Amino acid sequence: MYNRKKGVIIITAYRDQLLPREKVLRDPIHSYIYIQSPVILDLINTKEFQRLRRIRQLGTASSTFHGAEHSRFTHSVGVYEITRQICDTFQRNYPSKGADGLWDNHERLVALCAALLHDIGHGPYSHTFEHIFATDHEQLTAAILTSPETEVNQVLRRVSDDFPQQVASVIQKTYPNQQVVQMISSQIDADRMDYLLRDSYYTGTNYGTFDLQRILRMMRPYQNGITFHISAMHAVEDYIISRFQMYQQVYFHPVSRSMEVILNHLLQRAKWLFEHQQFQAENTPHLLLPFFEDHFSLTDYLKLDDGVLNTYFIDWCDNQDPILSDLAKRFLNRKPLKSIRFAKSTQYLIPKLQALVAEAGFDPHYYTATNNCYDLPYDIYEPGKNHQVTQIKLMRDDGSLVELSEISNLVKAITGRFLGDERFFFPKQMLQLTSTNPKLYQHFQAYLKNDWLVDPASQA
Amino acid sequence: MYNRKKGVIIITAYRDQLLPREKVLRDPIHSYIYIQSPVILDLINTKEFQRLRRIRQLGTASSTFHGAEHSRFTHSVGVYEITRQICDTFQRNYPSKGADGLWDNHERLVALCAALLHDIGHGPYSHTFEHIFATDHEQLTAAILTSPETEVNQVLRRVSDDFPQQVASVIQKTYPNQQVVQMISSQIDADRMDYLLRDSYYTGTNYGTFDLQRILRMMRPYQNGITFHISAMHAVEDYIISRFQMYQQVYFHPVSRSMEVILNHLLQRAKWLFEHQQFQAENTPHLLLPFFEDHFSLTDYLKLDDGVLNTYFIDWCDNQDPILSDLAKRFLNRKPLKSIRFAKSTQYLIPKLQALVAEAGFDPHYYTATNNCYDLPYDIYEPGKNHQVTQIKLMRDDGSLVELSEISNLVKAITGRFLGDERFFFPKQMLQLTSTNPKLYQHFQAYLKNDWLVDPASQA
Amino acid sequence: MYNRKKGVIIITAYRDQLLPREKVLRDPIHSYIYIQSPVILDLINTKEFQRLRRIRQLGTASSTFHGAEHSRFTHSVGVYEITRQICDTFQRNYPSKGADGLWDNHERLVALCAALLHDIGHGPYSHTFEHIFATDHEQLTAAILTSPETEVNQVLRRVSDDFPQQVASVIQKTYPNQQVVQMISSQIDADRMDYLLRDSYYTGTNYGTFDLQRILRMMRPYQNGITFHISAMHAVEDYIISRFQMYQQVYFHPVSRSMEVILNHLLQRAKWLFEHQQFQAENTPHLLLPFFEDHFSLTDYLKLDDGVLNTYFIDWCDNQDPILSDLAKRFLNRKPLKSIRFAKSTQYLIPKLQALVAEAGFDPHYYTATNNCYDLPYDIYEPGKNHQVTQIKLMRDDGSLVELSEISNLVKAITGRFLGDERFFFPKQMLQLTSTNPKLYQHFQAYLKNDWLVDPASQA
Amino acid sequence: MYNRKKGVIIITAYRDQLLPREKVLRDPIHSYIYIQSPVILDLINTKEFQRLRRIRQLGTASSTFHGAEHSRFTHSVGVYEITRQICDTFQRNYPSKGADGLWDNHERLVALCAALLHDIGHGPYSHTFEHIFATDHEQLTAAILTSPETEVNQVLRRVSDDFPQQVASVIQKTYPNQQVVQMISSQIDADRMDYLLRDSYYTGTNYGTFDLQRILRMMRPYQNGITFHISAMHAVEDYIISRFQMYQQVYFHPVSRSMEVILNHLLQRAKWLFEHQQFQAENTPHLLLPFFEDHFSLTDYLKLDDGVLNTYFIDWCDNQDPILSDLAKRFLNRKPLKSIRFAKSTQYLIPKLQALVAEAGFDPHYYTATNNCYDLPYDIYEPGKNHQVTQIKLMRDDGSLVELSEISNLVKAITGRFLGDERFFFPKQMLQLTSTNPKLYQHFQAYLKNDWLVDPASQA
Repeated sequence: MYNRKKGVIIITAYRDQLLPREKVLRDPIHSYIYIQSPVILDLINTKEFQRLRRIRQLGTASSTFHGAEHSRFTHSVGVYEITRQICDTFQRNYPSKGADGLWDNHERLVALCAALLHDIGHGPYSHTFEHIFATDHEQLTAAILTSPETEVNQVLRRVSDDFPQQVASVIQKTYPNQQVVQMISSQIDADRMDYLLRDSYYTGTNYGTFDLQRILRMMRPYQNGITFHISAMHAVEDYIISRFQMYQQVYFHPVSRSMEVILNHLLQRAKWLFEHQQFQAENTPHLLLPFFEDHFSLTDYLKLDDGVLNTYFIDWCDNQDPILSDLAKRFLNRKPLKSIRFAKSTQYLIPKLQALVAEAGFDPHYYTATNNCYDLPYDIYEPGKNHQVTQIKLMRDDGSLVELSEISNLVKAITGRFLGDERFFFPKQMLQLTSTNPKLYQHFQAYLKNDWLVDPASQA
Repeated sequence: MYNRKKGVIIITAYRDQLLPREKVLRDPIHSYIYIQSPVILDLINTKEFQRLRRIRQLGTASSTFHGAEHSRFTHSVGVYEITRQICDTFQRNYPSKGADGLWDNHERLVALCAALLHDIGHGPYSHTFEHIFATDHEQLTAAILTSPETEVNQVLRRVSDDFPQQVASVIQKTYPNQQVVQMISSQIDADRMDYLLRDSYYTGTNYGTFDLQRILRMMRPYQNGITFHISAMHAVEDYIISRFQMYQQVYFHPVSRSMEVILNHLLQRAKWLFEHQQFQAENTPHLLLPFFEDHFSLTDYLKLDDGVLNTYFIDWCDNQDPILSDLAKRFLNRKPLKSIRFAKSTQYLIPKLQALVAEAGFDPHYYTATNNCYDLPYDIYEPGKNHQVTQIKLMRDDGSLVELSEISNLVKAITGRFLGDERFFFPKQMLQLTSTNPKLYQHFQAYLKNDWLVDPASQA
Repeated sequence: MYNRKKGVIIITAYRDQLLPREKVLRDPIHSYIYIQSPVILDLINTKEFQRLRRIRQLGTASSTFHGAEHSRFTHSVGVYEITRQICDTFQRNYPSKGADGLWDNHERLVALCAALLHDIGHGPYSHTFEHIFATDHEQLTAAILTSPETEVNQVLRRVSDDFPQQVASVIQKTYPNQQVVQMISSQIDADRMDYLLRDSYYTGTNYGTFDLQRILRMMRPYQNGITFHISAMHAVEDYIISRFQMYQQVYFHPVSRSMEVILNHLLQRAKWLFEHQQFQAENTPHLLLPFFEDHFSLTDYLKLDDGVLNTYFIDWCDNQDPILSDLAKRFLNRKPLKSIRFAKSTQYLIPKLQALVAEAGFDPHYYTATNNCYDLPYDIYEPGKNHQVTQIKLMRDDGSLVELSEISNLVKAITGRFLGDERFFFPKQMLQLTSTNPKLYQHFQAYLKNDWLVDPASQA
Repeated sequence: MYNRKKGVIIITAYRDQLLPREKVLRDPIHSYIYIQSPVILDLINTKEFQRLRRIRQLGTASSTFHGAEHSRFTHSVGVYEITRQICDTFQRNYPSKGADGLWDNHERLVALCAALLHDIGHGPYSHTFEHIFATDHEQLTAAILTSPETEVNQVLRRVSDDFPQQVASVIQKTYPNQQVVQMISSQIDADRMDYLLRDSYYTGTNYGTFDLQRILRMMRPYQNGITFHISAMHAVEDYIISRFQMYQQVYFHPVSRSMEVILNHLLQRAKWLFEHQQFQAENTPHLLLPFFEDHFSLTDYLKLDDGVLNTYFIDWCDNQDPILSDLAKRFLNRKPLKSIRFAKSTQYLIPKLQALVAEAGFDPHYYTATNNCYDLPYDIYEPGKNHQVTQIKLMRDDGSLVELSEISNLVKAITGRFLGDERFFFPKQMLQLTSTNPKLYQHFQAYLKNDWLVDPASQA
């Protein structure tokens, strides 16, 4: 790097270089994403990262909220941007002068890279795909960061030999500096804050909004991680409520879940057909073969995206297997299953209902499912629990800390309570058999009467 | 349909039926899309319409504005919703009592269907695809509406035998009632109003906003089409300016255009390879074959979407043809070409520049291009012109009409002027050859100095 | 009214007339306020209604949230607009055909007038003024509506002789049709919905936002008032939470409350000076005399507004009475008292603290106060309670009703709980006496340590 | 100031002190106003600055746009906040190392104080008041800053003896550093940027919005003032268009102007009555006497606010002078005059129209007026012109400058053109005399037919 002032060439280490001019990406949530380090720009330009443009953030949710077609790319740069703002605030207001629990700016780059790359291991329809093919997006994230054949690894290695592993360890929460870890993973982190705002914006619901600016301004590092000045209490409370509302109303929406059920069964059926040698040669989904055969490489994995899977589904619509073909059509052409809530007390009825579905001509293995969605809106640490949680702590002016639910009535009301529902999914056709199968019809009707939620569900 | 009041069953014609309860789709632009007619709901549920979820509205624009990943589905329901609101306003305020130039509510359904389906013929990366394969989305729209094998046609035919053709003629602007035609196609129609607001929202730019509510409220039918009460003047003016700004800053963005150039060349190369029998069997893009061979059916066409094309591009990254493989990677991994503006006076330099690009090892046929984008922000009718335009007319309280540019200084300033630019595209590598090819480098540098726009272009 | 069609003059009753062209008022909350009836336009143009432009909606709150300077005029037209939209929805979707519990459109005008005029009786700094001078804005509202000397009454009487009394009875909740009453006064009415959105907008906090459009769309009349379709549950829940947050964070803000304490004491002192004949002739606040003397006319009352009171306060800054002058300056120049929370258990300390304030030279009667603010975010009916509440009820598709807190965990968590705080107010100077009065200082410091809320309070 | 680290007390000069904790004011436009310096906090707490809460920013505009009731206080803190952000950007990106044309951070405080105080000399209904009483808000601003009796001066003097004069000279544009001057006063300065956004927000119109964040980010200091990076071109262009639209549609609105005409005539009449000894003793507006008598002190001036004037107007409603009383009622109760546009060519008709108004019983001196409003949306420097303008210049990457209108077609279209209109105001009653004065009626009708704008004007 040539220094005009001094008229000499100074070699600045890659990790400390700045772009000659800041790059900006226009973003609907943060207005702009600001990129100052060439490391970040180079990471964005890798093929592994660009691939995230072809994987939707919310999977099947756009079948309910049609506006929510945004990709994991947009979310990833958003998490980066929030983290960048946190680092800037920390450096401006709480710069470390040594072992003082304040912010050490040498951590900036590892934090930014971890933020940007935290979702790089996700594949198409991640949740369902993992379930069928036993892949693990967290392991894959680590693999993409640390395998020498990826462009991402090549960029990270230019910083230093152990940098890829450091970034991976932040994402795996084993990095020693808890401030960096909690920026990316805690009950109120850059990841959650971006996705709530972004998913809210793209779905067109307003539930996910909260005062990001205030929360960021009131964040501060301390010995054991990240805390907030007590005057941010109401903003943090509002964030928790927003998160709760988004889970209840968007992420757990029965129609999206039913589309996921169909996808799950479709992939199951394809795997079964493969295992039973029933795929015709010309219809073989060759990019999926390594997964059917259960020995895939990172390169195989990185070729997949939503469009690749959908392309096979388009093929399968013409497949001679009636179940594969029907499920593919249901998925592509958005024919959701219907669903009803059930409770422990009514669970014993499900086998009976499945029998009736079978009677109506649908294989219950592929045409029914149970599925539960529960969220823990906010959790507090209890000794003896088997999972550790990062509580949200607020700092008073005298430096003492107080846990959020101790001072917020609203948060207290939902702390530690699992909220959500359990549902039984079945073909819509079951509701149209009034005359042909009155017995079955009556069973379902009995359910509907007890289940107010079936209505809002059918909204979209 | 059973009428509870009277206790008898009354058969309501399909075209006049109402859903038992209005369906609503949550939408970020219009808050909600309201569906009252089963015809509309049935059309949305066709596979041809659902396919629009898999085709992005703005093609390559999301490579510049990463937020703009929305599909033609979202835009189509948006155009429907605006048209629905116009029909409601017309029916409430200007119901026809006969041959009076007011709104005849029998036109409602044809208007709504045309609005919903006006883009149904679009395929993946429409503009480029049409250019290479000589398809025509307008003809295809008509075909989808009128061919008996489509689900869309089956729904429309349930209304009446000639209904598919009527809807098609609205889209083709040959429908007799100009009020209906102008709702969908004019200088200020439901189509444009939705895409400006929507593209503005999804890109995160604010240029495209205007006062939709006021414009809709002030719209009114008259003998020859649609006009606006004069008190909407400022809102209409603001719409024209917004449109102008969106074209200049979003739709004509050089980076998106350069990605389109790459796509264009990529498909050209694939076609050339096919024509020269250089595609290996296992790499043959079988869903594209009918287009390579130039005899495709509607069914062939309807199988295509963005993901299908991208899936072939993923395949082609490993193709042995270096140009196909390189262009596929550039497209998928977003490696845009650089570009500079040129004018008539500097046009003679382009062959020289192309020669230099060739010298640097790039086939200029595939690695350079010229491309112009000009918009006519607002046009007025002039006798003798070869294309007819629908001017925007405002109605005074006394019923007399005045053309917009006569009373708006701002609109007058841009009326009838083609604004935009013409660009030469070339590989970024040409800017990195400082030492290896100083002569070429100098040529480009000379350009850059004269071309301020190269900077903003590189912004994203 | 001349009918162009028929060429004859038809006399339309004033109550049924429509303006030749709808009037629109631009409004930041509802975009536009639409006025169709000349009765509404004439009411807005009365001097009693125009006076509301000179009375701020939130009194002293703008001393904390400087943006919140909007008047009761803006809120009143907003409540009108929401009510208008409700009436339109009811008339479109649930028109009565007789004694069926549906919406009788003859009620429209009385509902609109009651909505517009529900706050007409408010005076400057209403809450405090009433407290000192024993006025009652509800009685005054009724008086303004029914007294023949007001312009409002003259407009209402043009509708019919008993119309003023009908409108008044809606506001007093004695009107027979509970649908009309609940539009204006219930736990989720046009009044509350407008002020939450409006105060949220003007303060710049986002807490008060909720999905008005959805709530209005899902509202429906029934035999005993107003209910909501069950699919509005989440929107209604969000409204309750928003309301709770606005109370906690805006309406109960300690700084605004402390300004109200000062105002209260200032008016008390003025009254005391008047009663002890200590006002000089030239400083006598002649528009306040009728209130000091406790026999005021409606005309006297209608001359008052915020500016009139402030004008006297400006005068009083130069008054020879040191307490009146000091309090006037504190109020005008925004010198709030400080405050701390206290509980039953620490209440016994207050007399001691007051003694210390006296010791520091401040008359505790004028310079200290206790003040509590509690809100009941949502209440349900319980037999035997001394006040009747209108619970929020949701209607299932089968017509059965369910009370909100039965199906919303979030609402259940705050139902029937009084949330808020009790505070002791004192001069800021008490915190600056570190050296001069260490004992007192220590007392206060002891409090501060136990009271986290003192911090956020000092935010603005 | 005690330094914990070093354990010693260090005296920091007042100008360099920081508040122990940043104060924040919630603001609807900028989300928060951040206050770090005690000088700024102390200035806000002066009585002269608090008085701005009682003076509306837009005078009579709220009679047209009822939402726009915000005060000069809110605008002043907004201008401060934008200036603070500019200083932060300049200091972060362009810190001076000497005589290099970059930003010298010693200028920060003078810039912030000038921004905060630039409107401190405004009185109630400033424009009209100045016109009647020959006051001058710019001179008064300087006086408030430099007169030892004001609290503002006392705060400023604590910084240094010549600081009040320095701040005043920034506002008067005579300060040597043009960077500081142009922040506050130029064609694109903190003042204009705040009021466009703020007035747009409070009126509820969207015309005034533009991309503040981008403009601030792209601002940069240079030798002769302030420039923008060329990539901000579209954002700056949009700002100019927004400004143009706000003038045309909000600031020049005929109804607001007609209310200003009434106010003007009302004060004229009061002055005339005073000069002719026709004010009764008890009705004398004693706070206005110094202005009637034309020898007022700064103290006299600082007692005035909107409420004080309105209080006298309330009094005058009962005055025995019929013109004073009628105009006071028209002003308070919002009875605007009607108006029509006229041109040079129709100007000769005005005396005739005035004669007809007189014939109808209205004194034309008090009941008619002509009034023009013209805006120069953007101006460029031309040698020989009598006023100097600060053109907007954009900087290319090579450091060369280009003037905005050279590269923006839209700006070029409106550069140097005065846009607006000239109007004749008259009593509404003139339009209601159809039968009693048909001749006059015909004259006016002839005008109306030629004047489309009369309609939109009557909108509010």
